[in-house]
This record gives sequence, structure tokens and C-alpha cells, in this order.
Amino acid sequence: MIYITRKEHFNAAHKLYRSDWSDEKNLEVFGKCSNPNWHGHNYDLYVTVKGEPDSNTGFVYDLKQLSEIIKKNVTDKLDHKNINLDVDFMKDKMASTEVLTMAIWDQLESQIKSDYGSLYSVRLHETERNYVEYFGPNGK
Amino acid sequence: MIYITRKEHFNAAHKLYRSDWSDEKNLEVFGKCSNPNWHGHNYDLYVTVKGEPDSNTGFVYDLKQLSEIIKKNVTDKLDHKNINLDVDFMKDKMASTEVLTMAIWDQLESQIKSDYGSLYSVRLHETERNYVEYFGPNGK
Amino acid sequence: MIYITRKEHFNAAHKLYRSDWSDEKNLEVFGKCSNPNWHGHNYDLYVTVKGEPDSNTGFVYDLKQLSEIIKKNVTDKLDHKNINLDVDFMKDKMASTEVLTMAIWDQLESQIKSDYGSLYSVRLHETERNYVEYFGPNGK
Amino acid sequence: MIYITRKEHFNAAHKLYRSDWSDEKNLEVFGKCSNPNWHGHNYDLYVTVKGEPDSNTGFVYDLKQLSEIIKKNVTDKLDHKNINLDVDFMKDKMASTEVLTMAIWDQLESQIKSDYGSLYSVRLHETERNYVEYFGPNGK
Amino acid sequence: MIYITRKEHFNAAHKLYRSDWSDEKNLEVFGKCSNPNWHGHNYDLYVTVKGEPDSNTGFVYDLKQLSEIIKKNVTDKLDHKNINLDVDFMKDKMASTEVLTMAIWDQLESQIKSDYGSLYSVRLHETERNYVEYFGPNGK
Amino acid sequence: MIYITRKEHFNAAHKLYRSDWSDEKNLEVFGKCSNPNWHGHNYDLYVTVKGEPDSNTGFVYDLKQLSEIIKKNVTDKLDHKNINLDVDFMKDKMASTEVLTMAIWDQLESQIKSDYGSLYSVRLHETERNYVEYFGPNGK
Repeated sequence: MIYITRKEHFNAAHKLYRSDWSDEKNLEVFGKCSNPNWHGHNYDLYVTVKGEPDSNTGFVYDLKQLSEIIKKNVTDKLDHKNINLDVDFMKDKMASTEVLTMAIWDQLESQIKSDYGSLYSVRLHETERNYVEYFGPNGK
Repeated sequence: MIYITRKEHFNAAHKLYRSDWSDEKNLEVFGKCSNPNWHGHNYDLYVTVKGEPDSNTGFVYDLKQLSEIIKKNVTDKLDHKNINLDVDFMKDKMASTEVLTMAIWDQLESQIKSDYGSLYSVRLHETERNYVEYFGPNGK
Repeated sequence: MIYITRKEHFNAAHKLYRSDWSDEKNLEVFGKCSNPNWHGHNYDLYVTVKGEPDSNTGFVYDLKQLSEIIKKNVTDKLDHKNINLDVDFMKDKMASTEVLTMAIWDQLESQIKSDYGSLYSVRLHETERNYVEYFGPNGK
Repeated sequence: MIYITRKEHFNAAHKLYRSDWSDEKNLEVFGKCSNPNWHGHNYDLYVTVKGEPDSNTGFVYDLKQLSEIIKKNVTDKLDHKNINLDVDFMKDKMASTEVLTMAIWDQLESQIKSDYGSLYSVRLHETERNYVEYFGPNGK
Repeated sequence: MIYITRKEHFNAAHKLYRSDWSDEKNLEVFGKCSNPNWHGHNYDLYVTVKGEPDSNTGFVYDLKQLSEIIKKNVTDKLDHKNINLDVDFMKDKMASTEVLTMAIWDQLESQIKSDYGSLYSVRLHETERNYVEYFGPNGK
Repeated sequence: MIYITRKEHFNAAHKLYRSDWSDEKNLEVFGKCSNPNWHGHNYDLYVTVKGEPDSNTGFVYDLKQLSEIIKKNVTDKLDHKNINLDVDFMKDKMASTEVLTMAIWDQLESQIKSDYGSLYSVRLHETERNYVEYFGPNGK
């Protein structure tokens, strides 16, 4: 098995809050991340596929294809958007890095065809100091 | 003369738009940066002070003091905020990187006392691929 | 399971040497790292916690809490210090990156409470070109 | 077990093509990577060794030795070379990042002596956005 | 005056050699950079434009336009190419970073229209450790 | 004129203190940087030379020669050393980044021969967040 990773990025606004909580409660739990008027980040996204290299091409996965799958299913929906308001696959979800990373996995898994390789992990960097990695519901 | 630089950062939401333009006109001019529901960035801010090193300390400027001046006057007002809505010194201004960089200069210049050194430049990175530098109204 | 990582840093002096060896022997084994008058590094520390996201907050672990635990137990004790001389939890230990990484694990493991998530790994970068990762005594 | 990683780098030319395919077919499959006159990259190579720290030195592996093994067996053969034409261990192989990463593993595995630690993984970054990791034929 | 910078990149092969010199002389002067079968790099290109922000948009220069000018005139001609063999504006020139940086300036200067801003500098990074900056024939 | 820059690095210990001040006074002025047992950094050093490219080679300065000059005169004297105790050209000087940067200029200026190019600036990064640049006694 060999693991190949593609990095993409998007810039988005979000906030951490629950509409069923008061502003005070949101501030207490989420701190400045609950700012009612939003804040935002430059997100870096790393998608790893595992598989065996094709004997003709030496590729586990065509990186151009992989990049297009990520763009169509993930980054085009998130880039220059508000994660809480504009993104279909985040509707009614908490816009935390953890939840967003799992939602990106769900967007990608079925799109990465099995005769090439399969999705191994999704890693999402919210800032230079914070990131989350997810290996899927059956992952490590 | 010697030049000393301190890097700080903040995460903020913004959009590029003019309220006296239609959404269509804003989209035409500002593209996806005009998304009505905002987007955001991790901004990196570099503040450079020039001066002669103090003979007692070898310092052009105490970096702890410089960091505190930047935090109090700039990054505490921008971090986890909406640049268009929440920031007193950006009121009624376009939230472009160019305009924001000049506004940060104006926030800092008088705070950096002359017997140490003086503000030389403000450089603001909006993404890894875009940044603006300003040397003041009398700068190069 | 989801994995969340926080990056912290500290600047410290150290040397690699054994007091029961001669200077010559230390130089032979540890090279320039045995310089008697010390040298130092900007260390980058990555702490990864694994767990299930809390259904209320979407958090595996509150990153502000995690950062405070790391500061109190690790980086406040190491930052602007001499690892060989000033750090209680490194007393009588070799100040190699390997040994320091394991000692940081021991400082952190019990502090990260089980109802949130548990410590998964500690990764310590001594320079841009050298780093060590440890997954604990029962880790992979 | 503890995992220690050394980063090295090399700059090389290559192209992706099969001599048994037409230029048109190569262009169709490999895109601009098939440019007949070559292109090139700054490659970053991360080699990870796992083992137990030696009780005398606190080392899993002497990084100076590890660096020399990588240089002699890998980077001296690749640096400022053409991967398709100049490199003995890539003869008659596809110069993809996947195949190159596996070939680097084969170059290194037997050179890393067992009484210190053993090779755990080879990670090769072709660009800032693409990398491959390999854990060996018996790896994960 | 305000200075705005856009970063682009390209991956290319090249060698340093003079066809009027022997291989031995080329090796003596250019070292491993003269490898007859080429080598290559991931180049990072920073293009800086100076001007006054437009009062309507807050822009010195539309970065989308600037990016397109750089792609059309520079990076599309260099990316995945051989600098010595494939690039019209480098024909009969030495493929050093210095000469390439000046040639990129010449490609860009007339394309950046004067009613917005004007080209201030071109900076080209060949590796993480080497870069060249040029301010034009009338520059500093 | 064209400007070419070479990056080198060194790892060193230092402290900020005056032997004619008490520990209390040193702590008051220099904070944790005055720790009596030292601390340290990974320093990144950027040396810029300006000149005209040689018509035969396309070089402003041979980077291999420049690297060797920096190593012999600067980084070999600083790497894995104590700046306050071990470095001849820092004797009796404050080990601040400002003073060290100016001392590095003095080490290099006469070594960079005039028929190639001349030293333009020395930039020294003490951490990712602090750096100093010096353009010489007659510089800007």
C-alpha cells in the first residue's frame, strides 16, 4: 500500500454558536469564536488516498482527477463562503473543525472510485496552530 | 539605522462590496470576495520599526512593548471580528488589504514613541499568495 | 474517533553530554551538540488528542483548555530555560529530543481528562530537519 | 517505540511518459508532466526510523549517521540529476512520486542497521501540494 | 504609494552551461548545475506592483487580473517546461536565476497598465535557500 | 542592479544581560531572556549581495562561494555555540539580535569581493516572529 496526499485550500467565514443557547452561554463556551458577526480563516485541506500504483502509469491516483473531485465536492462549496449559512453539507451542523472534517470525509468517500485507490484520511488545518484529522467511521 | 520586525496575526471575516452598488455590480467587480454572507482569512501582520540600538540594551525597540502596542491598537480589535462591521478604525472604509494596511499604519504610528525608534512599514498577508506593504504617507 | 492537534513552541538551551564521560568522549559521540557552553533551539511541539466530538459543542477537546494544560505542564517550564539545568521533569535525564518527547508525554497524559478525549501523540521538532514522535508506552 | 525523522532534499528533472506510447497518448494520460524536454522539482524527503532510545545516548538513531546514509544511498544519486536518465536505482521505472518513494525505501532499508532502529516510513514531497508516503512491503 | 504582491509558481527543468565551453569547463564553473541531462526546481515567483488605491474599489491592482497577466506572459510559458529549450523569452540566454528574473521583468512591465499601478519588483526563489530580486533598469 | 540572497542557519545559546547590573535589574529589563542558565534559538540568516550579472555566467555572485564565505566567517563560529561566551566577534557585546546582525555585517563586508558584487543587507530571524535587517553604516 502507498499513500498519496493532495493539498487544497479555501477561505471561509464561520462562528461557533448554538441558536438554542443565549449569547452569554455561547460566549462562555466558545469564547471569541462565538462573535455574532462572524470571523474567518484560510483553511488548508489535505486529502490522502491509499492504494497500489497502477502498473502502466505508476499512479495510485491521478492527482489532477483527485484535485477536481475535491474542488467539485468540497472546496468550490466552501471557498469564499460562510460555513454556517452557505454550505449545503454543513446545514444544521456545528461549524467546528472536527465536524467540518467529518463532513468533508462524507463528501469525498463515495467519489473516490475503488479501482484506483480509496480515501484514507482527511486533515484540515484551521490555523497554523490547530488541525484535525479523520480516518473515517471504520478508521483507526 | 537598523530595522526590527515583529509578526502578529489575527483571524477575521470580511467582504468586498459597496452598499451604493447592486449585488450584481459588486459581483462583477469583486467576484467571489463580494459573497453577501462574508468569508474570512488568517491574516499575518509584520510591523517594522527603524532606529539606532540603545547602548545599554542593544535594543532598537523592546519587542515585548512593540507586541503589546500592536495587540492593544490593532490585533485585539481585529481578531475574531468582522472587519466591515466590528472594527472602529475601519468604519465606512473598504475592507481591502490595501485600505486595511494603511489603517493599521495610522493606528500604530503615534503609539511608537520617538526616543526608541519610529514605524518604518506595515506588511499584511491576507493569504499565502497575496500581501500588501505600506511605508507611510511620506514613505518610499 | 477524530484526532485534534495543537501546536505550541518554546525556545531553550541544552547540550548532549554525560557527566560520567570525558569531554573527548562526549565530543566523539555527540559531536558539536556536546559544546560545553550549550547551544539552543526554537522547539515546535505538536500535541494530538483523540476522541469523539461532544454532541453539544462539536469539540473533541476545547483547544483553549488544551493550550493551557500544555503551557502549565510543559512549555512554561521549558521556554527560555536550560533543559539540562532548569527543568524539574528532565532532572538526571539526557536532553535528547527522544527523551524530552517521552518526558513531555508523561507530563501531559494524566492532565488530559478522559471524559473529553485522551492523549494520542506528542511530536517535537528540534529543527526544521529533525523531529521525534511518541505515541506513549502502549502506543503504536 | 519512538519515531525519529530526518528531512533531506534534492533538486531533479524528470518526466512522466512511456516509451512504448505515442507522444499523444503520453500527453493524454500524463498531461503537462509528459513534456518531452523534461521539467523538474525541489523534492523534500522525510525518512522515519523507529526504535527504542539507547540508554547511554538517549538516541534511537544517530541523526548524523542517518543523514549520511540517506545522502550516500539516495540524495547524492538524485540531486541535480535527471531521474529518468541518471539514476541507477530508477532505471526502467516510471519516474512518478509513488514509484520513486518505493525505490528510495528499497535503497535505505538494508542500510539502517537493526541494533539501533529500523526504517518505518519514507515520505516524499514533489511540490508543496503533492506528497507520497510508503511504509514498506509489510507496512500499514 | 502602496505595494501589493502576488505569488505564483512554476516547476521547470534547466541547466547552467555555455555551448561554447567544454563539459569540463562548464563543470568547473557551474558545478553540479551543469549536469548535461538537466535538473529542475519548484520556482516561487513574487510580483510586486506599486500605486495608489482606487477610491471606488480600494484596490491598487485587481489581483485576479494581475494573476492572469503573470500566467499568460510568464508562468504558462515556464511551468512544466525546460527553461533552456522551451521558453521563447529565454532563447539564447543563460538560465541563471538572475537572468531569468530580469527576463520575467521584461515580460511583465508593459502588460501592467499605468492607470492602475506599475511594476515595482520581481522576486524569484529557485530553492528555499536562494532567491533573486530585480527592481527594473531604473530601479534601486 | 540585481539582488541575490542566500539563506544559511545556525543553532545557538545566548542570554540578554549586563554583568554590571543585578539579576533583578536584568530580569526587569530583559525579562525571561535574562535567564542566568541561558536559552537558545534556531537562527535563520539571509545575506543579500547586489551587483550586475557577469556576462559569461549570468551570475551576480557564485552562490557556492557566497555560502562558503558565510560559513567560514559567520555560521561556523556561531553554530552549536554560546553567543555570549564562544564567539570571538561578539566578545564584550550585548547578544541582542540587533547587535548580532550588525556584527555579522562587519564579518562579511570585506570578504565579499568588489569585482563581483557588494554586500547589500544582512537579515537575521531569531524566531518565526522576530527579525532584524541591517543595510550597513552607509545603508538606507
